[in-house]
Amino acid sequence: MESKKKGILERLDAGEVVVGDGGYVLQLERRGYVKAGHWTPEAAVEHPEAVRQLHREFLRAGADVMQTFTFYCSEDKLELSGNVKTISGAQINDAACNMAREVADEGGALVAGGVSQTPCYVQSHNETEVKAIFKKQMDDFLKKDIDFLVVEYFEYVEEAVWAVEVLKTSGKTVAATLCIAPQGDRHRVPPGECAVRLVKAGADIVGINCQLDPMTCVRTVKLMKEGLEKAGLKAHLMIQPLGFHTPECNLGGYVSLPEYPFALETRAMTRWDIHKYAREAYNAGIRYIGGCCGFEPYHIRAIAEELAAERGFLPPASEKHGLWGAALEMHTKPWVRARARREYWENLLPASGRPKCPSMATPANDGLTEN
Amino acid sequence: MESKKKGILERLDAGEVVVGDGGYVLQLERRGYVKAGHWTPEAAVEHPEAVRQLHREFLRAGADVMQTFTFYCSEDKLELSGNVKTISGAQINDAACNMAREVADEGGALVAGGVSQTPCYVQSHNETEVKAIFKKQMDDFLKKDIDFLVVEYFEYVEEAVWAVEVLKTSGKTVAATLCIAPQGDRHRVPPGECAVRLVKAGADIVGINCQLDPMTCVRTVKLMKEGLEKAGLKAHLMIQPLGFHTPECNLGGYVSLPEYPFALETRAMTRWDIHKYAREAYNAGIRYIGGCCGFEPYHIRAIAEELAAERGFLPPASEKHGLWGAALEMHTKPWVRARARREYWENLLPASGRPKCPSMATPANDGLTEN
Amino acid sequence: MESKKKGILERLDAGEVVVGDGGYVLQLERRGYVKAGHWTPEAAVEHPEAVRQLHREFLRAGADVMQTFTFYCSEDKLELSGNVKTISGAQINDAACNMAREVADEGGALVAGGVSQTPCYVQSHNETEVKAIFKKQMDDFLKKDIDFLVVEYFEYVEEAVWAVEVLKTSGKTVAATLCIAPQGDRHRVPPGECAVRLVKAGADIVGINCQLDPMTCVRTVKLMKEGLEKAGLKAHLMIQPLGFHTPECNLGGYVSLPEYPFALETRAMTRWDIHKYAREAYNAGIRYIGGCCGFEPYHIRAIAEELAAERGFLPPASEKHGLWGAALEMHTKPWVRARARREYWENLLPASGRPKCPSMATPANDGLTEN
Amino acid sequence: MESKKKGILERLDAGEVVVGDGGYVLQLERRGYVKAGHWTPEAAVEHPEAVRQLHREFLRAGADVMQTFTFYCSEDKLELSGNVKTISGAQINDAACNMAREVADEGGALVAGGVSQTPCYVQSHNETEVKAIFKKQMDDFLKKDIDFLVVEYFEYVEEAVWAVEVLKTSGKTVAATLCIAPQGDRHRVPPGECAVRLVKAGADIVGINCQLDPMTCVRTVKLMKEGLEKAGLKAHLMIQPLGFHTPECNLGGYVSLPEYPFALETRAMTRWDIHKYAREAYNAGIRYIGGCCGFEPYHIRAIAEELAAERGFLPPASEKHGLWGAALEMHTKPWVRARARREYWENLLPASGRPKCPSMATPANDGLTEN
Repeated sequence: MESKKKGILERLDAGEVVVGDGGYVLQLERRGYVKAGHWTPEAAVEHPEAVRQLHREFLRAGADVMQTFTFYCSEDKLELSGNVKTISGAQINDAACNMAREVADEGGALVAGGVSQTPCYVQSHNETEVKAIFKKQMDDFLKKDIDFLVVEYFEYVEEAVWAVEVLKTSGKTVAATLCIAPQGDRHRVPPGECAVRLVKAGADIVGINCQLDPMTCVRTVKLMKEGLEKAGLKAHLMIQPLGFHTPECNLGGYVSLPEYPFALETRAMTRWDIHKYAREAYNAGIRYIGGCCGFEPYHIRAIAEELAAERGFLPPASEKHGLWGAALEMHTKPWVRARARREYWENLLPASGRPKCPSMATPANDGLTEN
Repeated sequence: MESKKKGILERLDAGEVVVGDGGYVLQLERRGYVKAGHWTPEAAVEHPEAVRQLHREFLRAGADVMQTFTFYCSEDKLELSGNVKTISGAQINDAACNMAREVADEGGALVAGGVSQTPCYVQSHNETEVKAIFKKQMDDFLKKDIDFLVVEYFEYVEEAVWAVEVLKTSGKTVAATLCIAPQGDRHRVPPGECAVRLVKAGADIVGINCQLDPMTCVRTVKLMKEGLEKAGLKAHLMIQPLGFHTPECNLGGYVSLPEYPFALETRAMTRWDIHKYAREAYNAGIRYIGGCCGFEPYHIRAIAEELAAERGFLPPASEKHGLWGAALEMHTKPWVRARARREYWENLLPASGRPKCPSMATPANDGLTEN
Repeated sequence: MESKKKGILERLDAGEVVVGDGGYVLQLERRGYVKAGHWTPEAAVEHPEAVRQLHREFLRAGADVMQTFTFYCSEDKLELSGNVKTISGAQINDAACNMAREVADEGGALVAGGVSQTPCYVQSHNETEVKAIFKKQMDDFLKKDIDFLVVEYFEYVEEAVWAVEVLKTSGKTVAATLCIAPQGDRHRVPPGECAVRLVKAGADIVGINCQLDPMTCVRTVKLMKEGLEKAGLKAHLMIQPLGFHTPECNLGGYVSLPEYPFALETRAMTRWDIHKYAREAYNAGIRYIGGCCGFEPYHIRAIAEELAAERGFLPPASEKHGLWGAALEMHTKPWVRARARREYWENLLPASGRPKCPSMATPANDGLTEN
Repeated sequence: MESKKKGILERLDAGEVVVGDGGYVLQLERRGYVKAGHWTPEAAVEHPEAVRQLHREFLRAGADVMQTFTFYCSEDKLELSGNVKTISGAQINDAACNMAREVADEGGALVAGGVSQTPCYVQSHNETEVKAIFKKQMDDFLKKDIDFLVVEYFEYVEEAVWAVEVLKTSGKTVAATLCIAPQGDRHRVPPGECAVRLVKAGADIVGINCQLDPMTCVRTVKLMKEGLEKAGLKAHLMIQPLGFHTPECNLGGYVSLPEYPFALETRAMTRWDIHKYAREAYNAGIRYIGGCCGFEPYHIRAIAEELAAERGFLPPASEKHGLWGAALEMHTKPWVRARARREYWENLLPASGRPKCPSMATPANDGLTEN
């Protein structure tokens, strides 16, 4: 467990695979603690046991990083949602940091505090105001025992660059992930150029999170990598995609799907889809591999199991999982026992059980014009 | 909250809707605490915080009953699985009862202890031995503060009748649910006759749980009801179906699906599917309405929300849920705001995002012959 | 070719397989000679070369019977459609009989004249009037060189019985097929009882045509057979189903599908589907095996090829068809050559190429109530 | 009918829409006259009545051009197929030209003789030999009354250019269509450059035929148009795509689909799909609009009906077709009558009736490497 005390850059510089955690807001919505549409993290104060439990499940599944449950926790966003009146952003940040630290220490994991895009950027496009928001949340993090900082879920590279510039003043390692498509950010800045701008602004790790499915996100990170190579720049690569199949989405991401956010079930990745993703991401040279919305603890476990040989160990939760379905060998029905093998699950094309539903939807306003 | 202290029969006799809880083993498998294939409940001892949290989520979602996390916790089954060597069935039953009680008391819910079918029945078909197994687990329950008993997940009505006969000796209310298809149990005893036998053996509540999707289970319960009416018998009706779409399954249930148990994601019910189910079950005269495998907390919340008018209140977790998607009204994208209405979600046919997958599978050995 | 001169009963009595022809109206609609919605056969007079050509294609494909192109050619139906004002039913019947005879003689096939259900039956339910309509069309046939008569496409067994009673007065062999589901005719008379009534009325051959897919129709014919066996009656069995997949249809038949009649393409049977159907029909004891709407010449050829061993010969059109795709062996692309084998085509699950379309529809008013 | 006597260039120069004919080989395979895998046109000699009838159906459907049934009728191809030993290519060309002329004259249509890619090109890559093959077939055409020449179904622009160079020596108008994807020909020459080369070689009309679905082919023709515009060249545009949905195909075309050639039914276009295609092609500036494999007579009629206002008349076969389903107004079932309107058919998403089949396949070796 000694290696667990190394910082994020030490690990990545040493060539280790860092497993990220999964998605908090969608999972806690289903558990009854987050309100869809608002997606604000007041549960850190209201129901800490629920948040702590989810952290613990990701840790057991193999996550090396606990991201603080502080998504959308800027004051302007909290106000906009109007969901919580009596709890301040500072309180949430404080409670969330404590919990992430507590659970991280149970397994030698690191704690990362994150900032996300602001409503202010789209409305005012005022660099000073936007940066002040990032600074405020960063200051909350710096009061606590945080290992590194994450800039995540940005649709515009310009705003992400501003965030990196602010966060670098902390002296902490900064990772930056955009939620963009292979076609580029919402202003059509291509991924390669986005990566260059982020690294020039000071990001140590760059990549993609959320909005599109794993294989698409791997493609986008590859484009970032190519951009960096052409520019002669170096940075570690990171990926935390959706846990959903979104083959028909483009710039608009999964928010443009008719199923968002209350009928995404049929698109959920199986653990075997995640095995393929983890291998693909690893082969692309990405070493910080996690998930975002839709990634449940067993999806994170699948990353850790696929890369067990590379990492040298299995996660604690694998005690409760036969690799590639091996535990089915003791099933009473012979046709279920016959499923206790890798080839079976790798090649299965799961049926939806919904004969009146199509296999692809028509996304709404998929990134062509914006409101 | 006074009504909460009433017993299960008092509630049902008074015409109240009793909301059951959801599925523990599949959900805890995904959270990293139960091993698929074994499905044994040692987590009650090993990781009580995880089990307690799931109880709490079901309670917040509106469940009026906490079923003890003791599925498959007969000694013969525990031995067969060989999963846990150092924990006895008695220890698990004890810990599980404590936790269920603790959480139930947070919200005025009832605690039910359950027994399930035994490997012994199929192997020995020895009534004395099988009944001894039920007696042993019942005795564990009776040492604790249990409100009523449940006989659940039985494929053969004969074995279920034996269980009812044992459990009735406790003097407690007994509910009995079979996991059978509209065609009947594995010996093709029709549902109507199954219900009659169970009630004659002493069951106060009868119905269906697991193995098939909600609408199919409602059909089977209706057949039970008709059987009871023809026989001039009375009993309350109960239903706790799968949270998956299984249109192609017959006697073999969802275990016969190629996707079982590791690729069922695409078959998962949406909350809107559950609204339809809850209404259909209610209209069929069923008043104890819950879920089994695949029912997550938000599915239970959907039952409670669909029947809010009938029950007179919303569950605690509805604080974090806009009815019929109402909370999307504050979303920044106008096309997402347009989804904040009942008609939208009621009529949506969700796409699978998997164009290379079919919509129906061919079940294996679907109940025609058995091993 | 000597055997070709034997009558229909001689052939069936001798245990021969009789291959029927396919569907005329849908195919001629696509070729530009029949108007959908009307479905009347004025092309027999207007464009005889087009009808003759389709007869010839069915003959080459292996059909032993040419049915006269006289569907819906009762005066009341022709008037209702109002499609053709200057051509009488008698003219159509005359021309159609000539053509069928001409082509039949090119290959030793038999000619059958058919009557179908009348609008009059539903409107007046007057036996005398309805029988007069059948008599009129029969008299047209009897002026020509017809080998036997067919009563086909009847939704009500009562009307079909009336037709059999009329046609038996001709002294010709009478075959009678209903277009009903396994649940029974539109008055819910079960198939077994329908068959008994038809045979008692004088039908020599009974069975099913149109409205539902091949496998469903085989099931219905089996029920007819069981009914006859129980009643101690004997008759030959006949089947001429749809050439479309209609798994979601019940009593209403394919007319209730949203795709009827202008978007049925995706439901069309492949030739390999037809191989399975022909074998299934043969195994069920049916010996007069053909097709109705949706059966194109190559579907009829597939029946003849599947049953080539039983019949002792291949049809003329098999000169232009490698059995089970064998002719692909000379294809220039190796991956196409790899398809030149039975296992490939037998096991292929063809994709629709339509990811936004579902695999099942919701039929309209599927036989529950009628207008 | 005077306008009918104008040549192809006169018509296109005058801005008229020229409707092409549909696919002969696939349709005649289904009718029993062409052998799949070989696809050679010996039926022109063996069964002229069948070929003549199909010509007539296309003419009635609105086709302004009859292409001679001479596909793959080069000596090297006929030898390779070994299908016909006693009929020469010259005989086939002669018979096919006679028939095309005969039917064309029934409706004022033009006759076009076509040459296609040769096995010789891939095997020898010898310009002299390949050109000699084109010359031989051209000489056959020039003995007959042919209005213009078509170079079609070429995967390599280089070979198509050779064909144009040969055919231009005749003094006839030459149209040239490639069967390539938007990505370019098999050597990845982009469509824009292909068009430039063909026009520089002397083609008066350029475009795309076969291998991919209509909307994809429209995209490719647009790229050709852009290429010509950039190069300052002018030519008329032509399109004759597949009548199948092939969304997953790339360079390899529909031959790479697992369903090719014996299970393509589910991919067939409806007439309403063709309406959309015809409009899209027209809007893209294409004026010679027809179809290739999979286009049956009713698909050609749909082109003529969609563009009836632009052309000023409906085709003869529209006598037997209510526009947008209007003839259903007289149907006896009210739910079928409700389908007699444009909005219904335009918006219908037809179900496949095949719940165990996927909606997309994995193409084999889709153009990445070649044999």
